[in-house]
Amino acid sequence: MSDTNLSAVMYARNDLRLEDRPIPEPGPGQVLLEMQQVGICGSDIHFLTNGRIGDFIVKAPLVLGHESSAVVSKLGPNVTSLSVGDRVAVEPGVPCRVCEFCKIGRYNLCGEVRFCATPPDDGTLARYFVHDADFCFKLPDHVTFEEGALLEPLSVAVHATNRAGVGLGQTVLICGAGPIGLVHILTCKARGASVVCVTDIDPARLKVAKQIGADHVVTVTGKDSLATAQAVEEAMGDKVDISMECSGAEASIQAAIYATKSGGTVVLVGLGHETARLPIVNASVREVDIKGTIRYANCYPTALAMVASGKVNVKPLVTHRFTLEESYKAFDVAKKGEGIKVMIRCSRV
Amino acid sequence: MSDTNLSAVMYARNDLRLEDRPIPEPGPGQVLLEMQQVGICGSDIHFLTNGRIGDFIVKAPLVLGHESSAVVSKLGPNVTSLSVGDRVAVEPGVPCRVCEFCKIGRYNLCGEVRFCATPPDDGTLARYFVHDADFCFKLPDHVTFEEGALLEPLSVAVHATNRAGVGLGQTVLICGAGPIGLVHILTCKARGASVVCVTDIDPARLKVAKQIGADHVVTVTGKDSLATAQAVEEAMGDKVDISMECSGAEASIQAAIYATKSGGTVVLVGLGHETARLPIVNASVREVDIKGTIRYANCYPTALAMVASGKVNVKPLVTHRFTLEESYKAFDVAKKGEGIKVMIRCSRV
Amino acid sequence: MSDTNLSAVMYARNDLRLEDRPIPEPGPGQVLLEMQQVGICGSDIHFLTNGRIGDFIVKAPLVLGHESSAVVSKLGPNVTSLSVGDRVAVEPGVPCRVCEFCKIGRYNLCGEVRFCATPPDDGTLARYFVHDADFCFKLPDHVTFEEGALLEPLSVAVHATNRAGVGLGQTVLICGAGPIGLVHILTCKARGASVVCVTDIDPARLKVAKQIGADHVVTVTGKDSLATAQAVEEAMGDKVDISMECSGAEASIQAAIYATKSGGTVVLVGLGHETARLPIVNASVREVDIKGTIRYANCYPTALAMVASGKVNVKPLVTHRFTLEESYKAFDVAKKGEGIKVMIRCSRV
Amino acid sequence: MSDTNLSAVMYARNDLRLEDRPIPEPGPGQVLLEMQQVGICGSDIHFLTNGRIGDFIVKAPLVLGHESSAVVSKLGPNVTSLSVGDRVAVEPGVPCRVCEFCKIGRYNLCGEVRFCATPPDDGTLARYFVHDADFCFKLPDHVTFEEGALLEPLSVAVHATNRAGVGLGQTVLICGAGPIGLVHILTCKARGASVVCVTDIDPARLKVAKQIGADHVVTVTGKDSLATAQAVEEAMGDKVDISMECSGAEASIQAAIYATKSGGTVVLVGLGHETARLPIVNASVREVDIKGTIRYANCYPTALAMVASGKVNVKPLVTHRFTLEESYKAFDVAKKGEGIKVMIRCSRV
Repeated sequence: MSDTNLSAVMYARNDLRLEDRPIPEPGPGQVLLEMQQVGICGSDIHFLTNGRIGDFIVKAPLVLGHESSAVVSKLGPNVTSLSVGDRVAVEPGVPCRVCEFCKIGRYNLCGEVRFCATPPDDGTLARYFVHDADFCFKLPDHVTFEEGALLEPLSVAVHATNRAGVGLGQTVLICGAGPIGLVHILTCKARGASVVCVTDIDPARLKVAKQIGADHVVTVTGKDSLATAQAVEEAMGDKVDISMECSGAEASIQAAIYATKSGGTVVLVGLGHETARLPIVNASVREVDIKGTIRYANCYPTALAMVASGKVNVKPLVTHRFTLEESYKAFDVAKKGEGIKVMIRCSRV
Repeated sequence: MSDTNLSAVMYARNDLRLEDRPIPEPGPGQVLLEMQQVGICGSDIHFLTNGRIGDFIVKAPLVLGHESSAVVSKLGPNVTSLSVGDRVAVEPGVPCRVCEFCKIGRYNLCGEVRFCATPPDDGTLARYFVHDADFCFKLPDHVTFEEGALLEPLSVAVHATNRAGVGLGQTVLICGAGPIGLVHILTCKARGASVVCVTDIDPARLKVAKQIGADHVVTVTGKDSLATAQAVEEAMGDKVDISMECSGAEASIQAAIYATKSGGTVVLVGLGHETARLPIVNASVREVDIKGTIRYANCYPTALAMVASGKVNVKPLVTHRFTLEESYKAFDVAKKGEGIKVMIRCSRV
Repeated sequence: MSDTNLSAVMYARNDLRLEDRPIPEPGPGQVLLEMQQVGICGSDIHFLTNGRIGDFIVKAPLVLGHESSAVVSKLGPNVTSLSVGDRVAVEPGVPCRVCEFCKIGRYNLCGEVRFCATPPDDGTLARYFVHDADFCFKLPDHVTFEEGALLEPLSVAVHATNRAGVGLGQTVLICGAGPIGLVHILTCKARGASVVCVTDIDPARLKVAKQIGADHVVTVTGKDSLATAQAVEEAMGDKVDISMECSGAEASIQAAIYATKSGGTVVLVGLGHETARLPIVNASVREVDIKGTIRYANCYPTALAMVASGKVNVKPLVTHRFTLEESYKAFDVAKKGEGIKVMIRCSRV
Repeated sequence: MSDTNLSAVMYARNDLRLEDRPIPEPGPGQVLLEMQQVGICGSDIHFLTNGRIGDFIVKAPLVLGHESSAVVSKLGPNVTSLSVGDRVAVEPGVPCRVCEFCKIGRYNLCGEVRFCATPPDDGTLARYFVHDADFCFKLPDHVTFEEGALLEPLSVAVHATNRAGVGLGQTVLICGAGPIGLVHILTCKARGASVVCVTDIDPARLKVAKQIGADHVVTVTGKDSLATAQAVEEAMGDKVDISMECSGAEASIQAAIYATKSGGTVVLVGLGHETARLPIVNASVREVDIKGTIRYANCYPTALAMVASGKVNVKPLVTHRFTLEESYKAFDVAKKGEGIKVMIRCSRV
């Protein structure tokens, strides 16, 4: 295979192909990026396995990948904020910039956002990619490309904990110890949360959660939502100030509501079934707010500051490494749920 | 019957008795009140008809009534903020003042609150009542005792719209056109909401809603939640910024979520079944927040300022008037749901 | 003079010329506007009289005017939100859309904003003007072009009262009864403020303030800042929740601090001398916040909703009307401070 | 001297006496405390040296001390939250619980607060002290009495950084490297601030600031406010998100304004002269908010959670230790400004 712009393209369910594509040209305000590290996210796997996520259906060939770092290789017209050779993290969604959501700073709600690897927009698992310059964030020399790629899941946690208002001295329940649960542990601790409890069905994941910084862990297998809430309360000595629900499971959302103090907040990060039966009177009369999240807005600078200043250490999250040519293998490993984060190096040697 | 302190006491389901009680003595920081006007609230009717609301069960004789105005007739020790003869509105819940919720200003979440006519605490449907002085708010001369009593439901709307953040130029959906829905119309308009839409199953109630100030009304009978949301969207020309759910019905909560703009808020004021099936993914990915409410905190001064300054006119809400001696009849009328607000005059002629 | 695009151009201090200019072409995302009504603002007069405002110095010929309404006369590429013939209000500042301030929704802080009639960017006092489509807001049929132009000063008040958090039942002091003070009266009332007090040195202006809706007025002539604060407190019966300082005078800022309740906010709208001596310990220990404002962000939709729904009536603000050809005369009247708002009709008959 | 309740009493300027007083009795809701550690604060020294702070004038003998920990030695009536023998930190101000400020959770603004060692209320530098039980916070076994006493200055920083909204990834300027500046460094870091710069006139203090965790330090001696701001900007690579002014000096407040990004906040913690000349136009047009602070409200639980969870280490702040009998000597050392925090042990051996 020739290699002008080798790309990992999904054609249909479980049909991932490596193919060569032309190198795109950056337009005004854009840059051409030579991709470096791209992490595999649960959504990449979900698209590849199911062909869709909710209303987003893969109809045409789609380059996967949206957790990325890169080197700037060419500037489009009017770009002054970056130089060729700059090492950058790539915020994968570029909003329309003109709708009411973009104007009020909640651009993650923009209906016209182009988001890497969400149909119909191609992702970054390729040698080259064109992106708007202002969504590329310069990495200091001591921040690695892997760390740059990990700013994406970290930004999810920054946004969700912003929505929750996680702050100094608070107690937090994190439901789910997958990669997103883990970045929430790091982020809550960096914000000053004093005690963090993590729940999961998998004791192995909870062990990692402990290593990453969880103060308490609770295995939820075989417990109903009230029993889970009670176990959390026993571990923490009280209900928690805030719950970050990262599993999407109905029972887990219920448990999060029961386990949260009056006046607290449950933030929904994980997505599960379209509807859920919730103890809404319990939540209401105790004024436990329920807030959803979608991606992030204005979180990359914060995530970068956290990593660059050493407030969080995301390096232990990378457990598997592959080259772009090994993408099939990388996705196989990722599908099995082994380790935490699978990282693909897109640059040539 | 002698009449030292004639009181309307519930003994069991549908067993309301007028009986004479001793006049209580005000303790330190308290005042003895000569009750004037007391409105009948849905919760009074609910207690009388069902003997309970959720975990609050009427076990001992309970004086009903908590929407009240009064005249100060005696001062307890250390009371300097009030004088004998002062006309006051009575905020019915006195919190513990020492728990974390009281200290942060969210005293409606206090677990030790004493709330009029919520078991085991007696209400105000009596000639005399003792209350903490700082929960009695002086009425200007031009504010009537009926208006003073109506500050209670108005405070519910002040609190709920505070939680929602209803503000200038916003569009609001109010689900339910009962007395609580109606005070929400008044309050949203007073806060600067530009367009208000009200839903109900009863066209007669919606007619009143229109008279009170609703810009649009939608009859929901026979519609599922998506159809209701669509009807609201058609009436308003767009989804709404904020929804105030005052019915407690599952379908209505669902409709409120569907009808609310991305980034908006649904506030739950009405209470229905303990659990509800909600379109939680729809709410999540559009970041439509779901917030409950319980009573109010720090809202009486606002409600009073609204009425005293003429920003809202609550007078049309009172449709039926009775004396304390006519309490049976008053509750009969209130149970039938005739009119809007039934008011009982507690003072002797 | 031929009239392809007649424009009112300032060449130097007190040198305003009517000249003909070519009609500009709308670029991508832009529209060509046929200007309708343009109000004269204090800043227009200030530029014309002094040649500068702070660091903004008029160096080249500058078309004045930024309070404007128009009709869309031509669409640039990719414009779908507007049609030719649409009647619009024109938000005069177009930000860069890529800086951190634009992204967080505070685009009024953007350092690269192009703002009509602020050097080096031309204003709207002309037959034709090109503007970004998303900064043009469609007017309903019942909203007049004069009202459309007045959305500009109204947006100043929307922004400033947003910053202040003016809300239901609050008491507000407004310092200064010029056009900006007057739109603050309207806006505070529309937000639910219960009592508004206005100060000025000019009794005639205070009379207008009363007519517009002020509950109390205080003439400040001859009073020091403490005396003014005391006069306000006497008129209001207490210190105020919030002060909106619209004069820029040092004594007035001081009075606003003294007159504001502990925990309240003073918002600075008017600009005066670069520095001011402030009672900073008084403000500090009572936690009276001091917040400045610059223009507005995301306020035009709110201002439009206020006018369109009849929450505010800005029509009485227009006291003088001229044609574009009469611009000299219009500025003469405006300089003298006669009336409230001088409006220039830019359209041909 | 007999020793029923040995107390350090200020009689006049520089007239501190150790005298024996009767042991007070706890009233309802109160506890008798056997005092343990009491830190000397700048305000104690200020009272002792000047006889007053602002309007607070020492007229009668006054026991000094308000940074305290204790052991509960007797319960007054109705106290259920504490037991005899409990180790506690003592929040020194007990508000009235009935005014509007107490009710909204901003009890630090209460006009009727009784605050230890602020005239006319005695402080805690004694063997025994009576205090309201809900303002005593139980210390976990691993938290020392010295740490308990240090929760007081730590609460100042918690409150001030709450007011500022210091959060994840932000850059912060702290003006002043005295004890209050130092606890701000710890607190800002614990909240997730990424980079902190500290200014002072004293290089020795700045050295301590560095050891405590400051990333950058700037000596301000000989610099005007613009030069200081520029030096900060150079050290940080940009203006800062937030400035915490802990010196009270006019030039320092000015520098804080200049050094803060548009849209940022300057919080005033230090108190200096009653008035200050401020670059108010610069602050206004860049929307740099200026917020004062007075003590704290609802911050002790947070401060305790920070210390108990190990998020901050306050132990290095204690540089000098004395017994109650050595109080003269302790104040002598404290007056000289040697070390950081002087701690007095009030318990008998």
